[in-house]
Amino acid sequence: MSDPLVTLTTDFGTRSPYVAAMKGSLLSVCPHARLVDLSHEIPPQDVRHAAFFLAEAVPLFPAGTLHVVVVDPGVGSAREVLYIEVGGQRLLVPDNGCWSLLEAHIHRPLVRRVHDRRFWRHTVSATFHGRDIFAPVAGHLANGTPPEVLGPVAAEWVRLPWPEPQLAATEARGEVVFVDTFGNLISNLPGKLLEKTGASFRVESADVPRTVRTYAGATPGELVALVSSGGLVEVAVAQGSAAARLGAGVGASVLVRWQA
Amino acid sequence: MSDPLVTLTTDFGTRSPYVAAMKGSLLSVCPHARLVDLSHEIPPQDVRHAAFFLAEAVPLFPAGTLHVVVVDPGVGSAREVLYIEVGGQRLLVPDNGCWSLLEAHIHRPLVRRVHDRRFWRHTVSATFHGRDIFAPVAGHLANGTPPEVLGPVAAEWVRLPWPEPQLAATEARGEVVFVDTFGNLISNLPGKLLEKTGASFRVESADVPRTVRTYAGATPGELVALVSSGGLVEVAVAQGSAAARLGAGVGASVLVRWQA
Amino acid sequence: MSDPLVTLTTDFGTRSPYVAAMKGSLLSVCPHARLVDLSHEIPPQDVRHAAFFLAEAVPLFPAGTLHVVVVDPGVGSAREVLYIEVGGQRLLVPDNGCWSLLEAHIHRPLVRRVHDRRFWRHTVSATFHGRDIFAPVAGHLANGTPPEVLGPVAAEWVRLPWPEPQLAATEARGEVVFVDTFGNLISNLPGKLLEKTGASFRVESADVPRTVRTYAGATPGELVALVSSGGLVEVAVAQGSAAARLGAGVGASVLVRWQA
Repeated sequence: MSDPLVTLTTDFGTRSPYVAAMKGSLLSVCPHARLVDLSHEIPPQDVRHAAFFLAEAVPLFPAGTLHVVVVDPGVGSAREVLYIEVGGQRLLVPDNGCWSLLEAHIHRPLVRRVHDRRFWRHTVSATFHGRDIFAPVAGHLANGTPPEVLGPVAAEWVRLPWPEPQLAATEARGEVVFVDTFGNLISNLPGKLLEKTGASFRVESADVPRTVRTYAGATPGELVALVSSGGLVEVAVAQGSAAARLGAGVGASVLVRWQA
Repeated sequence: MSDPLVTLTTDFGTRSPYVAAMKGSLLSVCPHARLVDLSHEIPPQDVRHAAFFLAEAVPLFPAGTLHVVVVDPGVGSAREVLYIEVGGQRLLVPDNGCWSLLEAHIHRPLVRRVHDRRFWRHTVSATFHGRDIFAPVAGHLANGTPPEVLGPVAAEWVRLPWPEPQLAATEARGEVVFVDTFGNLISNLPGKLLEKTGASFRVESADVPRTVRTYAGATPGELVALVSSGGLVEVAVAQGSAAARLGAGVGASVLVRWQA
Repeated sequence: MSDPLVTLTTDFGTRSPYVAAMKGSLLSVCPHARLVDLSHEIPPQDVRHAAFFLAEAVPLFPAGTLHVVVVDPGVGSAREVLYIEVGGQRLLVPDNGCWSLLEAHIHRPLVRRVHDRRFWRHTVSATFHGRDIFAPVAGHLANGTPPEVLGPVAAEWVRLPWPEPQLAATEARGEVVFVDTFGNLISNLPGKLLEKTGASFRVESADVPRTVRTYAGATPGELVALVSSGGLVEVAVAQGSAAARLGAGVGASVLVRWQA
């Protein structure tokens, strides 16, 4: 039996001491926790970015992994801290919808409000719940504390509004929902649209000349559409940045047309 | 009994191979060490930044954790490498004051000079003591080597000059000592000054209109004073950057006035 | 016996979910693997940078460590994934020469093509072999799967062209092969050239006034030549950036002259 896995996702960067403080606070409760950094470079307070990030990464972990997420513009307000079980994964998150894209479609998630102060640091600052609530509660969970004692089951929680694509007979309209490190534009449109006969793609006012199966199938510098690693329509520049080329970012319109 | 925890704090970034080389060097001495990255994004050679960082994070770790700190503008000079026990934590640091803010006020720290070359790499480069001294010595300590054999007890060490606030009957003058990832300005003034009747705050020539308990208590974009997570006076812009708004950084004056 | 060590080196950054997805994919196969981040900040698709990085860091790890490297401009093309044993280290790399500088000069490396899909994710995307091939194969290797079953021994592989210095009786010509985080310029010339009588150094058209043993031996701001921590000729500005001072980067010429 391995030591418990606990992943960390924050918007703190590592120039500041906040991530380090969370790690200390967590390890002081559960010294044998195995910490795995997912990211500390979520753009500050960007809950949508966190939601996409978590949806792509969390489901891949072994069942029972605990994921601590502190992207928390509402720290210090009345927003709740939630403990969630969904799809075999466990999460500790602020109640701001950052986990919305993980919600299972069939099984309802189990959600608890983290209320019992016995599992918090004895003094809780108004501005750093990552260190004072999330980290020690994660430590207790990693130690085997049963989730039931953290607080009551919740029946409601914040759901992040997420743009739904508009699908019609011979066209679909969506938008860019994520720009990755390489400047690839990832949309909310399903990647299987690339299989449509004569499918053509447009980002804002720019036509995408060609679809490919892989970056390597494109000429360096060529603007192409392909299926993202998460199964969505992606627009990329081979060995370059589509975001820079098109001046496009999150929210840019993506239009697909095909033959009936 | 868990495997030994060893944290790493450097100004190396991770674009260069220096952090990776340190990890290899340490693990080749103690393969079962559990490495925890605190930061590799300390601004280059910024010992003051490291001092604040360590003071906020190190005390939170479980007793006995070993913290390796390589922010070392004097590498290759006659500066010593120190092994320190303070407040239950253990550190390996260059003797440049980077741990000054951790010095316990009551108990003297135990400080040793790391002299015995048996615990260094067999060849020591003039420019990379992180790989050649700090990492292997940390590995030996993690393996259980008693600190006594590293070298003699030190009676003196470099202390970092740290700005002391000036406190008077109805005002206090301090300065910004740290700017965090979000652009929050953290001063050297005690946060309890916010409790003074009619307390008003000024950064350089800018008045801070209001004090709040949490970021969430402020309107987005509002300039406010609050108590930092470390218990100091902090000036912030809710969902924005006070550093950018005020053009202020480390060293900017902070003035607090209150009613007698 | 410790849990298996697996290091990760990518050009993904951590703003995107790709590193997190790889970690999940790997840990879901081998939950007790001990992940060590070497870097996720290799410049995008910069195989030369990765080659230098790995040559400086990998040999320092304990024998048997598994190093997963995903700097992979050719993802989705016909390029192979290779499993390599060299100098006691084990690597999983795209066949693009990123490990060329690690090739042992005496012992031939053992190289296998990673072909057997039993050890891949059951669906393999065209664009993310890090998650779908490298990570699960690494998990299986960490679980003790013998490398023989991954695929056949390879007799040929891509070798990265690497600039060879030109050495003459009283001079040597090389070039900058790496610029580190501090702006230090590291060349392909052997550091022992600094011992030559009257050795003088030039980067492009700029003379380097002095050689020193350590950064601390230079005046702050002084341009100097010294031996890099990897044993090569390095040009640095003490407490500054030689790259910025000289406007020089990878490929800049480095000339050394000495007395016969």
